[in-house]
Amino acid sequence: MSKLIRRVAIVGGTHGNEWTGVYLVKKFQQFPALTTRSSFETITLLANPKAIELNRRYIDQDLNRSFASEDLLNPKLINYENQRARDIVAQLGSRDQPQVDVIIDLHSTTSNMGLTILPSTPDPFNLRLSAYLSQIYPDVRVALGMNCTQDAPLLRSLSPLGFTIEVGAVAQSVLNADLFLKTEQLIYAVLDYIEALNQGKPLDVPSRLTLYQAIEAIDYPRDAIGNLQAFIHPDRQFKDYEPLQPDEPIFLTFAGESIRYQGNSTVFPIFINEAAYYEKQIAMILTEKREIELDKEY
Amino acid sequence: MSKLIRRVAIVGGTHGNEWTGVYLVKKFQQFPALTTRSSFETITLLANPKAIELNRRYIDQDLNRSFASEDLLNPKLINYENQRARDIVAQLGSRDQPQVDVIIDLHSTTSNMGLTILPSTPDPFNLRLSAYLSQIYPDVRVALGMNCTQDAPLLRSLSPLGFTIEVGAVAQSVLNADLFLKTEQLIYAVLDYIEALNQGKPLDVPSRLTLYQAIEAIDYPRDAIGNLQAFIHPDRQFKDYEPLQPDEPIFLTFAGESIRYQGNSTVFPIFINEAAYYEKQIAMILTEKREIELDKEY
Repeated sequence: MSKLIRRVAIVGGTHGNEWTGVYLVKKFQQFPALTTRSSFETITLLANPKAIELNRRYIDQDLNRSFASEDLLNPKLINYENQRARDIVAQLGSRDQPQVDVIIDLHSTTSNMGLTILPSTPDPFNLRLSAYLSQIYPDVRVALGMNCTQDAPLLRSLSPLGFTIEVGAVAQSVLNADLFLKTEQLIYAVLDYIEALNQGKPLDVPSRLTLYQAIEAIDYPRDAIGNLQAFIHPDRQFKDYEPLQPDEPIFLTFAGESIRYQGNSTVFPIFINEAAYYEKQIAMILTEKREIELDKEY
Repeated sequence: MSKLIRRVAIVGGTHGNEWTGVYLVKKFQQFPALTTRSSFETITLLANPKAIELNRRYIDQDLNRSFASEDLLNPKLINYENQRARDIVAQLGSRDQPQVDVIIDLHSTTSNMGLTILPSTPDPFNLRLSAYLSQIYPDVRVALGMNCTQDAPLLRSLSPLGFTIEVGAVAQSVLNADLFLKTEQLIYAVLDYIEALNQGKPLDVPSRLTLYQAIEAIDYPRDAIGNLQAFIHPDRQFKDYEPLQPDEPIFLTFAGESIRYQGNSTVFPIFINEAAYYEKQIAMILTEKREIELDKEY
């Protein structure tokens, strides 16, 4: 028997120019009945109001890398996102003293990720909920990050339960109706799933789950001082989750030369050509595709 | 007989986060032979270096609205883009004392505009060159802005000859290889066309040209204090240049209500859901589709 979920947080605008989450949270704040369920409380949060106002990813540093426990405790870190991170911890609770049970953090990406669920941890609750969602929505995929633990500096990692939702491809600073509406339905499905679980009438979950486990980030080819020398190969652009075989092209240099994947086995790239990852020196993240058996319990 | 073209300017990074033009100009600067032709000089320019460095559209104001003659002469206007505009006039010449004959300004858009040519003026040189390009590249379309004169405050309007190239759909702050390569080929075709013209061996131009004439900009539905109340209707997203009939849906409110086009005749929207136009209160620009006969001469 699982423990009850008492509070769920839906967070948008952790990155201020990712409008899908910003406007979904604004909609939920305007129409609170949409996220109200009888067995738990839903709270909503716009995480980075100043970045939202200025329509930027962040002001001083990436808020979604500002939640390392040691950084939260370091009094020398006082920039805008350092302070926002502490304000958010005051609202949602710390890792040691959580005030919410589940965090859903809404992001968007210029990569063609469809609706991707990135669980905060491999907790059976997260995996079973992910399996449920990927069963009812065929464009939902589930990816485990390289740092899929509560030690990550991410907002979602304040809680072991919950996940990031990444939707794309959508440009920064625009609303795409189709992806907005699909994300909205996905959130209602999450809330309904938790409601049923709390009421002792859990919804059917498939026994197996396809997971994409991140194994390596690849940067763009650059010159000695960091300037880009190539772009994503046109055959690879928008091909997130499609198999990449050894020796297939991944980049095309500005001079016209193809650069091929040097690995020895088939991988499945995601976050291909995400706008905000150029500065993180990530052109794509390679994953391995795995089928896992789910625990019957939780 | 047409006059000779002596100097052509290729400009990128007028908006710092439109990377197609930024990286094309960087490529041309690295490999000058690519844009060298025997009968004229090609110069290249990164128009807004500080915005490029900070990966923003602009620093203080839109550089591509900073070239009104009265603003250039107004000593009270001293922000970064005001000063950049004057520096660019010093390089490319003013409307009265041009230093270049043709300006090609490279932009990108989150709208699905393919390769759009926006002539600086309806000068026969521009229209014939546009007709040539749309004949050899089927995804080239030609649109005349509402202010298609040298009185516009645009960078391109420093010269009567030339045009903006808008390519999309591509997110801000990313490189899309396919659109980059197509834009590059388009520029070479422009240079080759001018070379042939200068050499008295003009290339064949079709006798007719399809033009999309801008007639009206439409804003998103907003509340009394300007907040968005709707997004582009999912049936209309990415449908630039497709006919819009009276009573067809154009917006969908966050509450789920369709808002329909109130006009009386068929129009052809462009710049649908361009990220940078939310702040300009433009959701799309309506155009009329026209077929024109081209002058035989120039």
